[in-house]
Amino acid sequence: MKMYNFNSGPAVLPAEVLQQASEAIIDFNNIGLSILEIGHRTEWFINVLEEARSLVKELMQLDDSYEVLYLQGGATMQFMQVPMNLLDENETAAYCDNGIWGSKAIKEAKLFGQVHIACSSKDQGHTYIPRELSVPQHARYLHYTTNNTVEGTQWHFIPEANVPLVADMSSDIFSREMPFSKYALIYAGAQKNAGAAGTTIVVIKKDILGKVNRTIPSILNYSNHIEAKSLLNTPPVFAVYVSLLTLRWIKQEGGLAEMERRAQERADLFYHTLDTLDAFTGKVDKRDRSLMNATFTTQNPGHEKLFLDICKEHGMVGVKGHRSVGGLRVSMYNSLPLSSVQALCDVMKDFNEKRG
Amino acid sequence: MKMYNFNSGPAVLPAEVLQQASEAIIDFNNIGLSILEIGHRTEWFINVLEEARSLVKELMQLDDSYEVLYLQGGATMQFMQVPMNLLDENETAAYCDNGIWGSKAIKEAKLFGQVHIACSSKDQGHTYIPRELSVPQHARYLHYTTNNTVEGTQWHFIPEANVPLVADMSSDIFSREMPFSKYALIYAGAQKNAGAAGTTIVVIKKDILGKVNRTIPSILNYSNHIEAKSLLNTPPVFAVYVSLLTLRWIKQEGGLAEMERRAQERADLFYHTLDTLDAFTGKVDKRDRSLMNATFTTQNPGHEKLFLDICKEHGMVGVKGHRSVGGLRVSMYNSLPLSSVQALCDVMKDFNEKRG
Repeated sequence: MKMYNFNSGPAVLPAEVLQQASEAIIDFNNIGLSILEIGHRTEWFINVLEEARSLVKELMQLDDSYEVLYLQGGATMQFMQVPMNLLDENETAAYCDNGIWGSKAIKEAKLFGQVHIACSSKDQGHTYIPRELSVPQHARYLHYTTNNTVEGTQWHFIPEANVPLVADMSSDIFSREMPFSKYALIYAGAQKNAGAAGTTIVVIKKDILGKVNRTIPSILNYSNHIEAKSLLNTPPVFAVYVSLLTLRWIKQEGGLAEMERRAQERADLFYHTLDTLDAFTGKVDKRDRSLMNATFTTQNPGHEKLFLDICKEHGMVGVKGHRSVGGLRVSMYNSLPLSSVQALCDVMKDFNEKRG
Repeated sequence: MKMYNFNSGPAVLPAEVLQQASEAIIDFNNIGLSILEIGHRTEWFINVLEEARSLVKELMQLDDSYEVLYLQGGATMQFMQVPMNLLDENETAAYCDNGIWGSKAIKEAKLFGQVHIACSSKDQGHTYIPRELSVPQHARYLHYTTNNTVEGTQWHFIPEANVPLVADMSSDIFSREMPFSKYALIYAGAQKNAGAAGTTIVVIKKDILGKVNRTIPSILNYSNHIEAKSLLNTPPVFAVYVSLLTLRWIKQEGGLAEMERRAQERADLFYHTLDTLDAFTGKVDKRDRSLMNATFTTQNPGHEKLFLDICKEHGMVGVKGHRSVGGLRVSMYNSLPLSSVQALCDVMKDFNEKRG
């Protein structure tokens, strides 16, 4: 059966990437060894790592004032690593409270310094992106989540603040063109648009480092990783390689402009269908809808399980909402073919006719 | 050309493991999706994770007072995570100083509490394992590295101490039978005998947790990971899967007893050859020689590069010593065939005849 992968992450990857990754596990670049068996300080792997780091900068159009790291631990590790490296105990950082992941980042930041909530959408169950922000002038940075994977909202503008911007881009990195040089720090778990689970991309403007007084454990200190060129200790070799293959694919397909065009095309198709069917309702404000993760419900709550069963029969996985909020969600990352969205829309239309 | 993989880690893996891992990247268990594309909270992955966690306990013959976690960040992350979770600021932990990795662990522990050096082999360049230990009665734990990958020494006995034992077993885990229930905490990067780079196995006796006063960031708190059954956030899915395949292979081949027999056989062959050839010299005390990593030098220092070139011509990789100590080193992990050691010994004998 053909499968349609709407997983929220780990998620769909390009078929070419899977093919190359599979082959490299038997024989990497015809060297007679598996990618899993080569030393991380060999020229073989250093070439992989350096090409990946360089491609991140190229796709983001960043200059040498930035460094790219491939770390471990996911965005959750960054929730604590960011304030540990950037925020002293008596200092304040501003945070946008727009969803479950942002809330988790806030919780960890409070362990290291003062947190000022710049805006919150909690009053409406995080179904919108606030337009008004309050950012203290003395804030060390403003942190926000560019795309809320669980709730299905996305910032379609860049928050205005006269302090360094820090963004968790885990679920929309490399899906659109952005003025990335406006950010002081960007991080993203790779398992959506940048590869497979097991590595986290961290992009740092170097001049924001070295300003806190606390002693930072070696492995958590960004400066140590920068000095070691992202080879402080054994990196997640295979995850970095899959990320490289994914970045090469993005570039070959036309870069971020083309990824954005495809994302818009998929989202237009999906949301247009959603809005014309009585059987389904979108969960968030239309202007803040995510191009990556669409959240919705069945008009009749009793129909939700039935719809999920029908999706399953059609080989559609990942349609269930996040366990914390329920409902339905489909994720439409870079490598999801438009035909998958079309197939889903057909199922939804059919469901609407029979149960609407 | 046939390759002989003496890498110190990431290192040689069983051919069956590579084959299955490669296939799972195209289609995992015939579900029509790649192992890289499935959600980490699906039954598919939870079965993988639970089987892996359970196999670790089975191979180590541990009961339910222990929990097994698959974390990220390597042993280097554990160097700080262990004292952060087990050692209060005014408390003391005892550490054995027997090599580069142990020294790094000591450096991080000092950020969290008092460190008492239980023994050190620094006086002889870490070429032996001390027999005398000094462990304060009030020490929270005794930490040691069971096998020193860089220096080529291994503890062939268990240090005696009336305090909880914590061990970094990164380079000899699952290579021999041991009374694992004597340990309060064991950790190991997977990239030698337990899988590929990208995940760290942590085995914890639960009753040692919850005794420190500091606030621990969510992702670094062992208790949170235990409560979440090692699914606190997105785990390194593929690395856990490769570890599962490796553990299954160990079990199928005969378990730790058989791994130990093979390790002894390989080491006997190598060290016997080494000791009979004038052209080479072992670097460490014979009784403390590692069965995993053999360190040696050419009798004539000028011959080292020549010998490395000859190894390269024969498809032998990973024969160079660690950059911090130089010399030569061959690593002989679980899945290294005896025939690889034989081939190396033949090259050494030939070198000895021509240059000895």
